[in-house]
Parts: sequence; structure tokens; C-alpha cells
Amino acid sequence: MAIKALVFDVFGTVVDWRGSVAREMAAFGAERGLEHDWNAFALRWRAKYQPAMARVRAGDRGFVKLDTLHRENLEEVLTEFAISGLNEAEKDHLNRIWHRLTPWPDAVAGLTRLKRNFIIATLSNGNVELMVNMAKHAGLPWDTILGAEVARAYKPDPRAYLTTAEMLGCGPGECMLVAAHNKDLVAAMGCGLATAFVTRTSEYAEDQDFDITAENEYDFVAESFIDLAAQLDC
Amino acid sequence: MAIKALVFDVFGTVVDWRGSVAREMAAFGAERGLEHDWNAFALRWRAKYQPAMARVRAGDRGFVKLDTLHRENLEEVLTEFAISGLNEAEKDHLNRIWHRLTPWPDAVAGLTRLKRNFIIATLSNGNVELMVNMAKHAGLPWDTILGAEVARAYKPDPRAYLTTAEMLGCGPGECMLVAAHNKDLVAAMGCGLATAFVTRTSEYAEDQDFDITAENEYDFVAESFIDLAAQLDC
Repeated sequence: MAIKALVFDVFGTVVDWRGSVAREMAAFGAERGLEHDWNAFALRWRAKYQPAMARVRAGDRGFVKLDTLHRENLEEVLTEFAISGLNEAEKDHLNRIWHRLTPWPDAVAGLTRLKRNFIIATLSNGNVELMVNMAKHAGLPWDTILGAEVARAYKPDPRAYLTTAEMLGCGPGECMLVAAHNKDLVAAMGCGLATAFVTRTSEYAEDQDFDITAENEYDFVAESFIDLAAQLDC
Repeated sequence: MAIKALVFDVFGTVVDWRGSVAREMAAFGAERGLEHDWNAFALRWRAKYQPAMARVRAGDRGFVKLDTLHRENLEEVLTEFAISGLNEAEKDHLNRIWHRLTPWPDAVAGLTRLKRNFIIATLSNGNVELMVNMAKHAGLPWDTILGAEVARAYKPDPRAYLTTAEMLGCGPGECMLVAAHNKDLVAAMGCGLATAFVTRTSEYAEDQDFDITAENEYDFVAESFIDLAAQLDC
């Protein structure tokens, strides 16, 4: 079955959340004379991401946007790092670091090539406003923003994958998830989507020791979006 | 309150559905030696649009994509015009004329300017796949596709307007509907959205005698998207 649409995991696959959060927090800290391990701050903030979504996936909580979960998690991390006295506007500005993440170096050029031959859309747990602002900030040329908020379900809930494919007019096999994470790709395979693993070796650490190889039989395995574009003849 | 996002009605406001459908049907007829008033065909097809959505709005039918309604309506119009013998692929090709509509001459340049300062998104009754394909075909530079299918409600159901604004992170007044239709704008005003009327004088006929003037106090009234961009300092 011919692939019509490429749908992308975004955090870690398209953008470098760890480096971006650490850099912005370091700048924020420098302005206020705060000294912390800002890389550790980024990792702690991100570590609260899956548990927060797990409550929604389990039905313990109705669907809420990722911006809301990020904001709640930010409060916790600020407390853990003993950072206090920020007003609402300052906390909102920090929360919107996730709207200003920097793409991996190959992302914009690769997406631009892939867009020639395929629909390219997000299939992220990030909410629509976050993804739109990120795209405008970073120049990501999405055809449209889809994913968790539109499907009202967080990955790896099958509804996230199936609703996205269905809205793009694709049977599952006509839609391919591009991601740097084996678990995400396994869930997509379970829904019948095609899959492409893209290697991102420094998402969590410079010496990352997981998710650096394709652990299953994906349709494509690529070093970068440029490599994926070449393999797809774009 | 500052406007952050411009959301657009599409059929008639951004693209010329009547001319596009008539031209494609004329080409189809010429290939098959069929002679009909293809402008009348386009108008008949479109005339079935509101009644089909009305059933969904009234709750007589669950939400279905506009592609599905267009396809059902196509069957009726083909019967009315006594056009028979088309196979499924041919009917699907005709139904997808709506994915290939031609923009008004100012649309792409105007949207490109507006996109510099605002989020620009669709707020159409067209489904996501239709809008994505149209954008790729016509070069419409949307930041994202929203509207009826994502909100699971057809305009002028208030949920269509409010869900779209909410997903863009806008309070209603931070989101402005741009449309060539007074009824659409009145419904948006009722939801608290800002409004911009853009004059399209030949949507239904060269001598159209309705929806050619702003019938209410909208925030902006413009001759074209270029004019609107100038008024918004883009």
C-alpha cells in the first residue's frame, strides 16, 4: 500500500527539547543570579511528562492540554530546585519554552524535502497551540497539526494514531509514523501504521544508551530526515 | 484585546468553488461528449451542502466528514442531470474536485502577508484531508487546519468557532473570523470572536446580489486579503 502521509513524533524526533530547555533556563537563571544544573532541570521537567499523561490515559483525569500538564509539572520542578517568587507571567513564559524548542539541524531541510511528495503532519502529544507556535518559531513546514489534542487521547493510546490517520484520509498502512522512540513506533505498528525510526543519539544525554537503535522491523531506519528523504526519493 | 489568530472560512472566501467545479465538470463532459450547463451543475451540487449539514447539526445524523456529504450529494446531482455509468473511481475523482479548488487571485499573496503577524488557520466545514489537499494544490500557507471535523460540529454551531479558538490558545476575542458571508460572521460574533468581512462579488454568480456588503458592524471590512493585510499592518 502506498504511503500518502508522514506523521511525526516531535519532542526528541524533530526538536531538541533538552538542549532548548536547558539553554533558556540558564539564561533565566543568569538574569536572576540563580545557579543550578539546568540540564538536570530539563530532565526533571521531562521526567514528569509520562506520569502526568498516564493519569489521563488511565481515565483518572479527563483530557487536558499538554500545556496544562507542563505548567503543573513546572511548579513541582521549581519547588524541587527551591526556586520561588516567580509571578504568573514569568511562569507562563517559562512554560512556553516548549513552544520555542530548537529543531535538530537536519529537521527543517528534511521536512521541506519530504513535503514535496507526502502530506507531513505532527502526531505529537503537544497541543495544537504549542505545535503551531513551535512551527512558526522554528520554520517547521507542517501541512497541518494533528495528534493528542485533536484525537483527545495521548500516545500510545491507539486512538491517537488511528484518529490522525483517519483525518488525513489514510488507511493505517497509508500513514507512516516517523519517530526516534521504539515504544512510539511499536504502538503505531500495533495500529497498522507504517513506521520509520530516525536515530537521535543525544536526546536525553550526550552518551544516551537507549533508543539509539531500531529494536524492531520498521519499514525504514534513517540517520536523519535528510537520509529518510533520500530513501523515499524526495 | 489583541488579535493573535485569523481563522478563515474557505469555500467562497479563499477559493472559487463555483468556477472550479464548473471548469472541471466541463472538461469531464468534453471528454465524454456530455453537454450540460456546468455552472448550473456546480450550483446544484452546492445547494445540497447546507441541507446535508443541517441534518448533522440537528442531531438527526452523527458527524460525518464533508467528503461523505459531497459524495452523497454528487449522486443526487448526477441523477438530476441524467449522467449515468460512472464507476467508483470516476465518482471519487469528481468528488475530489473540492480538494482542487482554485484560490481567488489575492488569496495566496494575502495569506502570506497575514501569516507574518498572525496565526492563520482554516475554520471551514471542509474536512481535514480536503483542506490539506487543497492547500498543497493551491499553495495556501496555513499554519494549521481546524474547523468542523476537528470540532465535530458544522458551522454555524457555536462549538465550531469556540473549539477552534480554544485550540489556538485564544480567548474568543483574540481570534478573528475572516469570511465573505454575513451569516457565518454573525454566528462568530455571537461566540465573541472578532470578525472581518471580505467582499467576494462573484461567488454564486457574476451579478451576485447578496453577501456583497457588510450587513453588521464587523471589526474589519476589506476588498481582498491584500486590503485586509494592509489594514492589519502586515
